[in-house]
Amino acid sequence: MLTREENELLCRTGPGTPMGTLMRRYWIPVLFSHQLPEPDCPPIRTTILSERLVAFRDTDGQVGLLAEHCPHRGASLFFGRNEEEGLRCVYHGWKYDVTGQCVDMPSEPPESTFKDRIRAVAYPCVERGGVVWAYLGQPELQPALPEWEWTVVPDSHIFATRRWQESNWLQAVEGGIDPSHVAFLHRGNTTALQRGQDSGPSPLVYARQAPMSTPYGFIMGNAGGIRGVASPSHFMMPFYKIIRRLRHDDPIGAHAWVPIDDENCMLYSWEWHPERPLTDEEIEPCKTWGSIHAETFPGSDRTVLNQGNDYLIDRELQRSGQTYTGIKGVGMQDTAMQESMGPIQDRTQEHLASGDIAIVSLRQHLLRALKDVGNGGDPPGLDPACHRERAATFIHGGV
Amino acid sequence: MLTREENELLCRTGPGTPMGTLMRRYWIPVLFSHQLPEPDCPPIRTTILSERLVAFRDTDGQVGLLAEHCPHRGASLFFGRNEEEGLRCVYHGWKYDVTGQCVDMPSEPPESTFKDRIRAVAYPCVERGGVVWAYLGQPELQPALPEWEWTVVPDSHIFATRRWQESNWLQAVEGGIDPSHVAFLHRGNTTALQRGQDSGPSPLVYARQAPMSTPYGFIMGNAGGIRGVASPSHFMMPFYKIIRRLRHDDPIGAHAWVPIDDENCMLYSWEWHPERPLTDEEIEPCKTWGSIHAETFPGSDRTVLNQGNDYLIDRELQRSGQTYTGIKGVGMQDTAMQESMGPIQDRTQEHLASGDIAIVSLRQHLLRALKDVGNGGDPPGLDPACHRERAATFIHGGV
Amino acid sequence: MLTREENELLCRTGPGTPMGTLMRRYWIPVLFSHQLPEPDCPPIRTTILSERLVAFRDTDGQVGLLAEHCPHRGASLFFGRNEEEGLRCVYHGWKYDVTGQCVDMPSEPPESTFKDRIRAVAYPCVERGGVVWAYLGQPELQPALPEWEWTVVPDSHIFATRRWQESNWLQAVEGGIDPSHVAFLHRGNTTALQRGQDSGPSPLVYARQAPMSTPYGFIMGNAGGIRGVASPSHFMMPFYKIIRRLRHDDPIGAHAWVPIDDENCMLYSWEWHPERPLTDEEIEPCKTWGSIHAETFPGSDRTVLNQGNDYLIDRELQRSGQTYTGIKGVGMQDTAMQESMGPIQDRTQEHLASGDIAIVSLRQHLLRALKDVGNGGDPPGLDPACHRERAATFIHGGV
Repeated sequence: MLTREENELLCRTGPGTPMGTLMRRYWIPVLFSHQLPEPDCPPIRTTILSERLVAFRDTDGQVGLLAEHCPHRGASLFFGRNEEEGLRCVYHGWKYDVTGQCVDMPSEPPESTFKDRIRAVAYPCVERGGVVWAYLGQPELQPALPEWEWTVVPDSHIFATRRWQESNWLQAVEGGIDPSHVAFLHRGNTTALQRGQDSGPSPLVYARQAPMSTPYGFIMGNAGGIRGVASPSHFMMPFYKIIRRLRHDDPIGAHAWVPIDDENCMLYSWEWHPERPLTDEEIEPCKTWGSIHAETFPGSDRTVLNQGNDYLIDRELQRSGQTYTGIKGVGMQDTAMQESMGPIQDRTQEHLASGDIAIVSLRQHLLRALKDVGNGGDPPGLDPACHRERAATFIHGGV
Repeated sequence: MLTREENELLCRTGPGTPMGTLMRRYWIPVLFSHQLPEPDCPPIRTTILSERLVAFRDTDGQVGLLAEHCPHRGASLFFGRNEEEGLRCVYHGWKYDVTGQCVDMPSEPPESTFKDRIRAVAYPCVERGGVVWAYLGQPELQPALPEWEWTVVPDSHIFATRRWQESNWLQAVEGGIDPSHVAFLHRGNTTALQRGQDSGPSPLVYARQAPMSTPYGFIMGNAGGIRGVASPSHFMMPFYKIIRRLRHDDPIGAHAWVPIDDENCMLYSWEWHPERPLTDEEIEPCKTWGSIHAETFPGSDRTVLNQGNDYLIDRELQRSGQTYTGIKGVGMQDTAMQESMGPIQDRTQEHLASGDIAIVSLRQHLLRALKDVGNGGDPPGLDPACHRERAATFIHGGV
Repeated sequence: MLTREENELLCRTGPGTPMGTLMRRYWIPVLFSHQLPEPDCPPIRTTILSERLVAFRDTDGQVGLLAEHCPHRGASLFFGRNEEEGLRCVYHGWKYDVTGQCVDMPSEPPESTFKDRIRAVAYPCVERGGVVWAYLGQPELQPALPEWEWTVVPDSHIFATRRWQESNWLQAVEGGIDPSHVAFLHRGNTTALQRGQDSGPSPLVYARQAPMSTPYGFIMGNAGGIRGVASPSHFMMPFYKIIRRLRHDDPIGAHAWVPIDDENCMLYSWEWHPERPLTDEEIEPCKTWGSIHAETFPGSDRTVLNQGNDYLIDRELQRSGQTYTGIKGVGMQDTAMQESMGPIQDRTQEHLASGDIAIVSLRQHLLRALKDVGNGGDPPGLDPACHRERAATFIHGGV
């Protein structure tokens, strides 16, 4: 249970908020590279940490990320012409390069130097592993580039999707790192999960073990003395989960819950194999609800099952016990629960149990990081060595 | 005309408001019994007095009414499994019986007694006359069960519907008890109303007679000295109207306007005959707009005619004078007027006339009841003897 | 750039606001006369300066404009019966004439004089040039009737439309009087515009000339020393633009951006020829996107291209350079830009350039007028001589 103040502190990530400031210390996934398929292609609107932005790929192939509204008189750069090394506002032709610098101002006399003094808000972007990453924080604090394992494997080794979730980011992460729900919410769902339940110890045993702190977050359960554990899951600052691997040669899964605004987040989901291409048998469930992904409308991040249609819950299926929920797919089951808490969960009303020790740990880690950053320090997990560490730990924990 | 403060005081019924506290002294209609057709059937979401709730029928057939969000971490119990004497949250399997007691907590170790300390907010429910009634107030103040006539007649004697109205409850009740609008708004509508207008005195005569206070509310008009009056209408605390009977053997009608939240209410409408089954001639207009009911979309409480489509007003029909409004059905005519005032009528701008004496009386009764309850007293109409009294008065007033 | 306070001051026009008070000094377009096609036809809902109103045409053909809610108990007069010299609320039959006087109160006893004391809020209306004009200000300050040129030419000489824009009125007017955007936003659009660009000086030259103040507003650019200028554009208080004529015999265009509420405005667009009927060649582009008008859904003020569908921007067309934006039609290009700034542009973030001198001038004129009115003076442009002045200036400026 949190006080109202603590809940606000942890949930709100807009400009100027403490958690917003913390999040702005990290490189953040903004979109997939394939959403900007070629130089000078149409720009894309996106909202990150409550900031309305426009992303574009310039003539050289570099990605730019600008505040949506033109510095001139506020027209949206989304409607802009993406041409010749810059995004040009169609209102008066002002043009910005990926650094935000105004490089052309044809509405002013040729001799004017006014354009040199005009900069759009722009955030540095890099592309790694098929993802455009942006840094929205103070330039002098920019950290080293992300080196997550899923950003370095070849395309053949990975499957990635994203989808819009209508909830605050924190209840999504809490749902993600929650070990005990798997035994209930997802019961009856997939062969893989079934196998895990059959062969390993119950996730409920994990759930009550104190997480083990790491330089980047923590490991769910300390796994001490549990026979047959394939690997534990990881929480990695500020909003990642690496999913525990049920069998040694299984693909590895990961999620990121990126705040769109305080009542919405974008869930990125990856499955990859560090050493080999994914097989057809591994990819097939990714595309057909058998895994952590979910179906979205074509060309959209919105899920076909959603809050507006009660996730098409099938009460007969639920009653039959074939699945616990009657909701299709592990991914949408998670989303259904997390969205059903309301846009921002009221944590003054909750009652945590011993199986929620990971949730408690998450909040403690976040509150501590907020305090550190407030005191002028660095938050954990900035060093990309942490990202590499993850993979090592994972493999180490194998059977 | 009311002050802004008085208007707020009368209209708002959420937890902790004076009117909300007053309403919570009564048994309140929550849904029809047939909406929970059998033991362990799917639960239903409902909002009453601005509280989000989930209703379910357990294995024994008992109805439970719980706060929507699971006490654990806030997932919606609407998605719950209704099984073996309780509603089980699908997130972690916590299960609640109809009293709100947590009776199973499979995510905790078997020896844990934590579940004994966990209770969902639960309200006692009873079923009477095809309606689930709930008591949302303090347990020690729970009144005797409702004994309205429409709760005790056999199924064959009664016809009941409900529909969602997009307005505050008070302007709906004020519309319901308003005698003078019948002569205008509903002109040209039904044979029954026509008959009433033809044979009895004008409702306008009633409208200017001071209502007669009763132990449960008041009677519209004192009916003194009016020849041929079949029966007067009744207002009964806190939101009921018993409709005056135009001829001695007609069915009797009643409405309840139950606050959903401050800008919406659920209108329950009943027609019944105390002594005999309804005839086909009496039921037919109930189903075809000839009466106080209205058409809703299948499986929904939303009306086919509604604010969004201007109630499909037919201006030619209105102009022709066949009906006064061009809006189909007595029920929707009332709703159209009441919704058209805005979500909460601004009573600082109104101008009441001598025909509004019942409206004035209603507000006085409500304000007095608020004062009594605020002083630690009981509001009127708690004693079910009042419910029986109504019928007696009614028959007594017959020709 | 404005302070937040100045921005609020200029943008908000509801009752009691300074700009609302200023606007209420003028006759304001409310709807087209043809929207009330005949005596006693159905009334129309409309919102002007954040006031919800109902317009109707009485038996004599006079137009009335009443506050939407009946003074009695607040039902909407939109559902009223328009009959026998007045609009009758269908709730209790109270009837109001075009002056707002209650002229019948059939729910009260015949001898009652209560009706004499009841008045609906009513605003005087006149019809000129196919437009219903209303005066929403203090009666003692009512100015002379409008004499705009487009109100006095025969029907054959004029083409008029209106459409709903989802933005504050001020950013719409600023877009309207902005000379420099034409060379970019509308590039490639119409033969007429092309001709203008080919034959005259660039609008960019205008854009940097200080506007010339007039008794009614100002002229964009002082046109001094520019060879080949057909005519300059005019801003006329409080929200009009007369579009510069590219060739001497072209039709003249004008816009009015009438505040609906603070986040929406109604754009009226007129094209007329002062001396002769419009030709088919002139009317055709008005109907097919070739001009300042835009397509609306049948029977609606809502545009087919709109914010919800990104104005159906065609990125291939934009890329090809055939049009600058890929958005169809000069009118929708303007609307797209103005709406894309957000419901109310945040002018604390803008950066004005030398080409924005007309924008600066507009704000200075408005702020000065606000100050004058605040000091008990009159705003500019009340005298209809100003309206006639416009046409004279225009013709005078011809080649």
